[in-house]
Amino acid sequence: MKKIPVSEFNERIQRLRSALKKEQYDFAVVHSTESDPANVRYLSDYWPIFEHTEVLVPAEGEPVLLIGPESEAFAKDRSVISRIRKVLELRESAEPDYPGVPVSSFSDLIDELGLRQAKRVALIGYSILPYQIVQGFRNALPDASFEKADRLMIALRSVKSPIEVEMLAEAFRISEIAMAEILKVIRPGMSELAVVGVAQKAMYENGAEYEGMPQYVLSGTNTRHAISRPTHKLIEKNDLVQLNISARVAGYSSGVGRPVCVGKMTPKMRDLVAFGLEAHMKTFELMKPGVLASEVARKYTEFVRKRGYGNNMLYGPCHGLGMMEVEPPWLELTSDYELVPGMTFQVDTFFYAEDFGLRWEDGIVITESGIKLLSSDKLEIMELG
Amino acid sequence: MKKIPVSEFNERIQRLRSALKKEQYDFAVVHSTESDPANVRYLSDYWPIFEHTEVLVPAEGEPVLLIGPESEAFAKDRSVISRIRKVLELRESAEPDYPGVPVSSFSDLIDELGLRQAKRVALIGYSILPYQIVQGFRNALPDASFEKADRLMIALRSVKSPIEVEMLAEAFRISEIAMAEILKVIRPGMSELAVVGVAQKAMYENGAEYEGMPQYVLSGTNTRHAISRPTHKLIEKNDLVQLNISARVAGYSSGVGRPVCVGKMTPKMRDLVAFGLEAHMKTFELMKPGVLASEVARKYTEFVRKRGYGNNMLYGPCHGLGMMEVEPPWLELTSDYELVPGMTFQVDTFFYAEDFGLRWEDGIVITESGIKLLSSDKLEIMELG
Repeated sequence: MKKIPVSEFNERIQRLRSALKKEQYDFAVVHSTESDPANVRYLSDYWPIFEHTEVLVPAEGEPVLLIGPESEAFAKDRSVISRIRKVLELRESAEPDYPGVPVSSFSDLIDELGLRQAKRVALIGYSILPYQIVQGFRNALPDASFEKADRLMIALRSVKSPIEVEMLAEAFRISEIAMAEILKVIRPGMSELAVVGVAQKAMYENGAEYEGMPQYVLSGTNTRHAISRPTHKLIEKNDLVQLNISARVAGYSSGVGRPVCVGKMTPKMRDLVAFGLEAHMKTFELMKPGVLASEVARKYTEFVRKRGYGNNMLYGPCHGLGMMEVEPPWLELTSDYELVPGMTFQVDTFFYAEDFGLRWEDGIVITESGIKLLSSDKLEIMELG
Repeated sequence: MKKIPVSEFNERIQRLRSALKKEQYDFAVVHSTESDPANVRYLSDYWPIFEHTEVLVPAEGEPVLLIGPESEAFAKDRSVISRIRKVLELRESAEPDYPGVPVSSFSDLIDELGLRQAKRVALIGYSILPYQIVQGFRNALPDASFEKADRLMIALRSVKSPIEVEMLAEAFRISEIAMAEILKVIRPGMSELAVVGVAQKAMYENGAEYEGMPQYVLSGTNTRHAISRPTHKLIEKNDLVQLNISARVAGYSSGVGRPVCVGKMTPKMRDLVAFGLEAHMKTFELMKPGVLASEVARKYTEFVRKRGYGNNMLYGPCHGLGMMEVEPPWLELTSDYELVPGMTFQVDTFFYAEDFGLRWEDGIVITESGIKLLSSDKLEIMELG
């Protein structure tokens, strides 16, 4: 199995250090969790389960991986960062006391890393950073200022290296295999969740390390949900079924979205499904290097409104793709950055009506001349049986 | 599919309100995430994906479910709490701006709920509560005091109702089916992850709504990890394989742990596996109503040390079980509560040596006279082929 080489991890740390120095931060606290693992995995290849994790990256000096009290053997085998310390505040939310397991305090870490004089601290993964951890660092460094600095990591992560694109392409390859397996067996009478099982088996057999996100298999009125989870509902004859299938490879997430009717679509359904596909293709056409992201969103929105589907749109048309199936930067009306080669996006075309909804979704890479699709099977109106 | 009735959710809210009143809190902020969903699901049946979620429970008055900007249709269909408000700070970590989607500020919520005079606020899910959310509430109520109050929810959740025990039993039934499927097919040459796919398919076919935790299929030296994730490693002849299989039903998580050798065990392996099973049974014997939790841990620890395996033990011997596969209360040397009927635990017997480790794990319910096992298949030394 291919994976990101250690040299690339070291380069990432080096680039983060340079960004910290440039903006006069003394160190960064980079936080991740089981369901939001991207930033720490990007720097260390470590992905926690149950516990939280952090990387402290000093502007000068070596980083340290922080873990909870139970993950030491696991983290030593998986982390590219070899200095590892256990911190009680990163324990699982069941909050065991772990009598007898030695841990470091925030103050110990500040001393060990020689950061007692630090004045400015960059907080990354800010929106998920627990209150008690920020307070722990504040108490250890009462005179320092602590600032949200996710932008440093977004700048690092949003243009992908060739090996990162390879990992994404492999994840999409596996998602497309799982989608094909589903299309072979899906039929009225199966539950949404039984279809998830088919996807899971195909993904793990073909090289996935995990799901990229929980699979969406939504049928009937459940397809109205922009965000959702599958249920025990049985798929009925003529139901529209929303499939979003997502495999993960070496930390990189994919997602392929297809609406499929198990039977015959109503005219209203067919109309919105077909318009959705047209809008999806429109975004493919608008995405190219040198274009301002907000311009793509503006032109897409105008296209949708002009065609009379403005009220069927919740957001759109793209979001960043990489170590999270949804990662920054989003691409929306307020996005003031330029598309450059190596950026990767999910083209995520979601429309909803009163009684159903649908999503077309594919991964793309911005190239020197336009885009390359990471998935493209079954970009067609599907009525099965 | 059986599920928790609405009346039981209403009763839970009522009990939390009583606890708040008794301790003179004006309201509670109860926080959950995708990978730590228990507290909010316990009160509302809602389980987020991508976004965070919270329930505000006033000591007097009706609760409100807080969600991110994208989950409205999903939350309306799933939440037992019908008053739902969108809050930008609960958005997914990719932090879209969502231009045009109306949201409530923390201050709006305080006014809407009539909490402007609140003096004491109970924070629940404290260890995962993001800094920016606590600060948001603090800014809206600058004179109030904010206190960690997880103990209120632990008191509510740790004794299970009959229907909760039924949901757990169903989750264990499914995990045991998945384990049996694995034992039929596991063999040298399969990757750890391919085995995960077998478990997933069996779980979803048999009524799981999701995994209770990411499955552990760890082989060879990976079995030393107390916490871990499966890899692409191929299972080798004579490897010890650690299986922890976990299905979820209606929010309730199970976990069945069995070590299995794909070939013949070395004498050292067999010795520790057999002692592990003996220690596991010892815990079954020690768990009964009226006993102090720390006493069980003390007697278990003495038993293990006396038999010469003290250095092979990381923690033990039990942790709470319910809506998380690991939930409070833990059962360790510092646990000063009494076991009472209706409490549910995972008996989690983990031992490790230099080159391998193993875990026996089963769910139990404390009954009037002792315990009832929620899983018990294959409590035996397994050498396959």
